[in-house]
Amino acid sequence: MPSHRPEQRPSEGVAATPQPPYYAVIFTSDLADDTDGYEEMAERMLELASRQPGFLGFESAREEGVGVTVSYWSSEHAVVQWKRHVEHRLAQKMGRDRWYRCYKVRVAKVEREYGHVMQDT
Amino acid sequence: MPSHRPEQRPSEGVAATPQPPYYAVIFTSDLADDTDGYEEMAERMLELASRQPGFLGFESAREEGVGVTVSYWSSEHAVVQWKRHVEHRLAQKMGRDRWYRCYKVRVAKVEREYGHVMQDT
Repeated sequence: MPSHRPEQRPSEGVAATPQPPYYAVIFTSDLADDTDGYEEMAERMLELASRQPGFLGFESAREEGVGVTVSYWSSEHAVVQWKRHVEHRLAQKMGRDRWYRCYKVRVAKVEREYGHVMQDT
Repeated sequence: MPSHRPEQRPSEGVAATPQPPYYAVIFTSDLADDTDGYEEMAERMLELASRQPGFLGFESAREEGVGVTVSYWSSEHAVVQWKRHVEHRLAQKMGRDRWYRCYKVRVAKVEREYGHVMQDT
């Protein structure tokens, strides 16, 4: 499937981030009833984020209205730059006014990581 | 609905964590084809985690096999204690052997958070 996104999904959804330290922005949201235009905005924000300096990857899932999206960034500066991005700010405002019943954003410094990839048998 | 879980879901899925700093464990997984017994294990692990010292809450969603679960902990010590929990260790092994095609665990220190709750109109 052709994609404008960087190569960051080695296994359908798990981001291939570098060695820590780096930053994670954990965005958890509970959608309100009016989700008109939401999907398009989310797609667009992902596209914009992936072009930002310092973007390392993202992971996301939504289930029964609750979404957990984690984006990874090379530095805190990169996190702040993305937060201030003009179009992203507009989306944040629309999110508050309309799409999200509730959301929380947590900025966290990833200190260590470990993982596992199933071996082919 | 009766529950043994602490009060940590003010809005269907967004955890009511305290002021930072605290720790986040970001667990992202891609399920393999054999998911027999997986749901029961996931439920059980959540139940066990919520009884651990230092547990602050969790957020979770799964979509098309990709799951993003973030659990929050009061300290790094609490994170390590949970990782070493005997029954949790067994579940980790079964996960590697059977349920997860791929997973990644990231331990991160939450430095700041902000959020929004929609006002009733």
